[in-house]
Amino acid sequence: MPGSTFGELFRVTNFGESHGPAIGCVIDGCPPGLALAEADIQPELDRRRPGTSRHVTQRNEPDAVEIVSGVYEGRTTGTPICLLIRNTDQRSRDYANLLDTFRPGHADYTYWRKYGLRDPRGGGRSSARLTAPMVAAGAVARKWLRERHGTAFVGWMSALGEIEIPFEGMQHIGNNPFFAANASLVPALEAHMDALRKAGDSCGARIEVRATNMPVGLGEPLFDKLDADIAYAMMGINAVRGVEIGSGFGAVRERGSAHGDELTPEGFASNHAGGTLGGISSGQDLVVRIAVKPTSSIRIARRSIDRAGQATVVQTLGRHDPCVGIRATPVAEAMLALVVMDHALRQRAQCGDVVHALAPIAGARPADAGR
Amino acid sequence: MPGSTFGELFRVTNFGESHGPAIGCVIDGCPPGLALAEADIQPELDRRRPGTSRHVTQRNEPDAVEIVSGVYEGRTTGTPICLLIRNTDQRSRDYANLLDTFRPGHADYTYWRKYGLRDPRGGGRSSARLTAPMVAAGAVARKWLRERHGTAFVGWMSALGEIEIPFEGMQHIGNNPFFAANASLVPALEAHMDALRKAGDSCGARIEVRATNMPVGLGEPLFDKLDADIAYAMMGINAVRGVEIGSGFGAVRERGSAHGDELTPEGFASNHAGGTLGGISSGQDLVVRIAVKPTSSIRIARRSIDRAGQATVVQTLGRHDPCVGIRATPVAEAMLALVVMDHALRQRAQCGDVVHALAPIAGARPADAGR
Amino acid sequence: MPGSTFGELFRVTNFGESHGPAIGCVIDGCPPGLALAEADIQPELDRRRPGTSRHVTQRNEPDAVEIVSGVYEGRTTGTPICLLIRNTDQRSRDYANLLDTFRPGHADYTYWRKYGLRDPRGGGRSSARLTAPMVAAGAVARKWLRERHGTAFVGWMSALGEIEIPFEGMQHIGNNPFFAANASLVPALEAHMDALRKAGDSCGARIEVRATNMPVGLGEPLFDKLDADIAYAMMGINAVRGVEIGSGFGAVRERGSAHGDELTPEGFASNHAGGTLGGISSGQDLVVRIAVKPTSSIRIARRSIDRAGQATVVQTLGRHDPCVGIRATPVAEAMLALVVMDHALRQRAQCGDVVHALAPIAGARPADAGR
Amino acid sequence: MPGSTFGELFRVTNFGESHGPAIGCVIDGCPPGLALAEADIQPELDRRRPGTSRHVTQRNEPDAVEIVSGVYEGRTTGTPICLLIRNTDQRSRDYANLLDTFRPGHADYTYWRKYGLRDPRGGGRSSARLTAPMVAAGAVARKWLRERHGTAFVGWMSALGEIEIPFEGMQHIGNNPFFAANASLVPALEAHMDALRKAGDSCGARIEVRATNMPVGLGEPLFDKLDADIAYAMMGINAVRGVEIGSGFGAVRERGSAHGDELTPEGFASNHAGGTLGGISSGQDLVVRIAVKPTSSIRIARRSIDRAGQATVVQTLGRHDPCVGIRATPVAEAMLALVVMDHALRQRAQCGDVVHALAPIAGARPADAGR
Repeated sequence: MPGSTFGELFRVTNFGESHGPAIGCVIDGCPPGLALAEADIQPELDRRRPGTSRHVTQRNEPDAVEIVSGVYEGRTTGTPICLLIRNTDQRSRDYANLLDTFRPGHADYTYWRKYGLRDPRGGGRSSARLTAPMVAAGAVARKWLRERHGTAFVGWMSALGEIEIPFEGMQHIGNNPFFAANASLVPALEAHMDALRKAGDSCGARIEVRATNMPVGLGEPLFDKLDADIAYAMMGINAVRGVEIGSGFGAVRERGSAHGDELTPEGFASNHAGGTLGGISSGQDLVVRIAVKPTSSIRIARRSIDRAGQATVVQTLGRHDPCVGIRATPVAEAMLALVVMDHALRQRAQCGDVVHALAPIAGARPADAGR
Repeated sequence: MPGSTFGELFRVTNFGESHGPAIGCVIDGCPPGLALAEADIQPELDRRRPGTSRHVTQRNEPDAVEIVSGVYEGRTTGTPICLLIRNTDQRSRDYANLLDTFRPGHADYTYWRKYGLRDPRGGGRSSARLTAPMVAAGAVARKWLRERHGTAFVGWMSALGEIEIPFEGMQHIGNNPFFAANASLVPALEAHMDALRKAGDSCGARIEVRATNMPVGLGEPLFDKLDADIAYAMMGINAVRGVEIGSGFGAVRERGSAHGDELTPEGFASNHAGGTLGGISSGQDLVVRIAVKPTSSIRIARRSIDRAGQATVVQTLGRHDPCVGIRATPVAEAMLALVVMDHALRQRAQCGDVVHALAPIAGARPADAGR
Repeated sequence: MPGSTFGELFRVTNFGESHGPAIGCVIDGCPPGLALAEADIQPELDRRRPGTSRHVTQRNEPDAVEIVSGVYEGRTTGTPICLLIRNTDQRSRDYANLLDTFRPGHADYTYWRKYGLRDPRGGGRSSARLTAPMVAAGAVARKWLRERHGTAFVGWMSALGEIEIPFEGMQHIGNNPFFAANASLVPALEAHMDALRKAGDSCGARIEVRATNMPVGLGEPLFDKLDADIAYAMMGINAVRGVEIGSGFGAVRERGSAHGDELTPEGFASNHAGGTLGGISSGQDLVVRIAVKPTSSIRIARRSIDRAGQATVVQTLGRHDPCVGIRATPVAEAMLALVVMDHALRQRAQCGDVVHALAPIAGARPADAGR
Repeated sequence: MPGSTFGELFRVTNFGESHGPAIGCVIDGCPPGLALAEADIQPELDRRRPGTSRHVTQRNEPDAVEIVSGVYEGRTTGTPICLLIRNTDQRSRDYANLLDTFRPGHADYTYWRKYGLRDPRGGGRSSARLTAPMVAAGAVARKWLRERHGTAFVGWMSALGEIEIPFEGMQHIGNNPFFAANASLVPALEAHMDALRKAGDSCGARIEVRATNMPVGLGEPLFDKLDADIAYAMMGINAVRGVEIGSGFGAVRERGSAHGDELTPEGFASNHAGGTLGGISSGQDLVVRIAVKPTSSIRIARRSIDRAGQATVVQTLGRHDPCVGIRATPVAEAMLALVVMDHALRQRAQCGDVVHALAPIAGARPADAGR
């Protein structure tokens, strides 16, 4: 309840600070019997970790995960799984000049007002580094969902600053540092980032994330709707300022006769809904988009105040991602997986006895059918 | 946890169906000593209730609220407040033809898949009618927040279908059936709705909602961030498909040097953040926008299937809002108030002893300063 | 979280005051498809209701339950079930003299200190009358558990004040106003109560409650152990001061070689554990005993203070049970059923895929095998 | 919700297994600004740790605690405090013969039925070793409560098997390995334990634990009563089979005229209630007693079954406490502190604005006034 635990039945409690000795999480409620080792988790962490290209922070962290508990002879036991990631490359000195001031757009000011004090080292608790344990926990959820329901999660960047990135094909996502589903635009994206870094500025991004092979019936009315929990999960990722599902803000201009996805014996005829109806999964793909704001820590000098309330100027010289959205894709995938996982368990708790003579109808093939 | 309870410390449990005997809610955790009577709640319900103009459903419901418990001699006692709203105008016969089929875009299909059966009368539990108890609960939260912190909530429609509705002034909102902060466009909005109704179709809308005089320090990292809980609350409102805060999706194209709100001894210089930093309220106004999809129940015939999986055609002849977004404004205000209320209590639980020598800095005057 | 909601997945939110217009509860999370009508609930309420013998309060309440929501065409829909019980026999005047003073042993003083004000009518929220909605909710849980698992719940009084009541047979429980599993002692119990009433005093009682045909595997380590949740549920019943399971306090004097229940292919050889091992149900009968203190509201004058802190004398003349333990048996059964119900849903959420080649071993036949 | 998290606002999530690499917990919701170092926690762990006398398990564990997060420059920051205790003396081989069988009275059987598999090393998750992180978390709660409210917690053993241990004085508790508030009986207790160990058997114990200088008004009706949460906390400690508060089971035989504690301007005249009225703290001392069953792991051979359901004989040769109750005293103190801490935060969340002109009245001096 104080905010560091995510989920109701598949519960992830996150701890640690960016420059403390370690970060990590405790997963409580994982079904027993799942084959699990560090090797199932590490690849997801590697996708998110810093230092992998010149376009992200140059902090050098292996982000090596240790399973501290909850696994015996390679299987989850149903008891809490503690995942620990030691911090190895802390440079507290970089932040010395920020001890007394508040970066515009950053959580410095609000943490100080809320708690009366704060850990300034690398953003402390408000650092995007704290998404790493969620990526690790998400890897566990993804494995169970894949094995149990065939559900898979994939995300990509669909806009970098002003540059729209059309979807070309899934196969491109892993082949560039931007998680762009597009090969031809990569040089433009690289040029954009190089110019931005040179200017000492930062930019925003838009990420799209999807779940396929979704079980039907997940989501709890009235409040813990699947889409409401997705919005909660996504808006909780650092720097996210907007979330939309299916048609999203485009639905404002749509007519009901166009928006409502028709049902046919062969399946849904379209997927404007983005995978939920009345907050409950329909079996269509989940389609989620998020807006990530530009990084707050930039080299350009900006007006601010100090803790005495006096005017000052702030310039951030530490290592930072010039576009925090770049590394957000694996995080968004992980958070979506955690939401689906939690609801999969919740669903069978209440409705485990519901049987249907007919299988659910199929989802619509999206326009970008190659996916 | 099964989804009908909203909030952690100011908890609202919602019950009832659109055409059952009654709907209502139980508020648990309200601070004691608050002066409270039905007259504090009814005006908010009246803003949301059906039948107030030709542009909304013609169902005739007084939505009269009864305080069943939790108040003694005009003051809240700190024990659960049960609010009951009797349904008076049920017409189950209108829905007889829908018993066996699924309206495209509606929760019919997913409720049936989830629970194995459903209450078809007026949409049962998935009806937007269930937002009424939240408006009632929101009225209690609003009263406490106004008295304790001076916080106020106001919303308006900023787009109706393709029609953008520029903000002209707060004074207009209560003077038209659309909650438009604009007088000159009202004839165009009415004409739009008349045409839509004639066509048997429906349209979407965008609503903006704000909180002013916000306490600083509300919101729990990492997950129960104030903005994450706002996103959860808003996406949980019937038909909402998108939520953004501050710059929202506009932040994708902003630079960090423009987006990050500078701090000065006189206050914040701008409010791109929309009132939160790191998920914690900054004292700036909360600025939230939501996308409401077009109503699913329309008179235009559409393809669907029946419970046996056979192809059929569905046409909805009951009384429905042709734009469910019209009545969404008081709902969005109420949900925002419930989020803030809950976090106000959570904040003092953990940080009740934090003291600051300096008062928080002021929020920025928004460009539409007349508000 | 504010305390009026019981359970995690089968959640019961209780509302109302003893002399307000109504009391009731909202059950959220009930599995869909359960056949349910008022007639399934009313008999349990009738067992608990006042005025059924001269040994309990003479308040005349039919305790008629109304299902307000969550049931359609005789089946639960999976949405919240609101149960409403109108109060019909309020006599606020009886309590007029208590408005300003605090009954020794009663919640008057602590409610006032906690909330700053209180509803004095009939004890308001602290009245044992608020157990009625739990009995109603328990009836729903019992029905589902009986149909799904064959689990049944039965309780009886094993001591009334100084009188120990040996177990003779189940068949006696329903044939006397004390829920005594004993016929021969009934005249002595009646004489005891008559003398007590004449003296204007009250006495305590001990209740034993059991669950049979228990599913194996219910209970969540480390904290939400089945026995921990039973202790929580029982100690939360008005006037309960002690809870023990299996050997209970007798275990202090037992040796491990005697206490640990041996396992054999034919089943457990004994049941000292009372149905749980490591907090998880073993399939043996749950064996629970509770101590109920004497009613606080008595006619004998006692020293107290008033709200100004001045010394005064308090004498309670209203209608009260001289032994609140008498009507506690159906309440204890209901609370035990609610705990088991909640854990049955929790168990299948996490461990729904666990399969065993072997059936669980049988429970021990207790010494009182006729039960 | 899956059971490894304790508390609502001061939340402790426990992880680890007896013979895994580490055990520990994450405390979320600790008020910021509390001075905290390992030295505040270690002394409490030292009171509970194994190997301190010949009467407890000879496992050699330093139980050294590491603060991994949540503290900056010696003060809590309000973010999660992760406490890690490395296991150093695992001897998995001792348990090799238990891999396939179930110890009578132990959780072996139920863990296996629940989860389908289990970690047999030292009892895995069901080991009493998992109380160590709770003692550590309790130390944090105790420090805050002592500084903020002056509240203190103390426990002692009041019975060891058949031996009743009269209270002589607080000063004795720390001077013997039994936490006995009695010096003269210590030789008898030692002789008892030596005989027991020689016989390869085990025995039960009764522990009394108290809180003094209690804030008034803690506890949430109807269900999260302070005493209900105490019962939950205590029954959740390994091997506890009974909990009573104040008069406890003695209340069965008391009359209302004797049990109800009179109020006078000088304070309560007695403390039969044990510190709560209507589930809310009265300001009197909390008085709690628990029954601890004899250790299940004994050297005496007992009948059991194996995983194939065949009859077998089990004899436990590992290192075990012959009376698990001996080390339970610091655990019970810690759990009581955690309950009070959680409710202290909950109370100010809802009722933080309640003011009284008069101070609460004093608690009664207990008969054992020297305490």
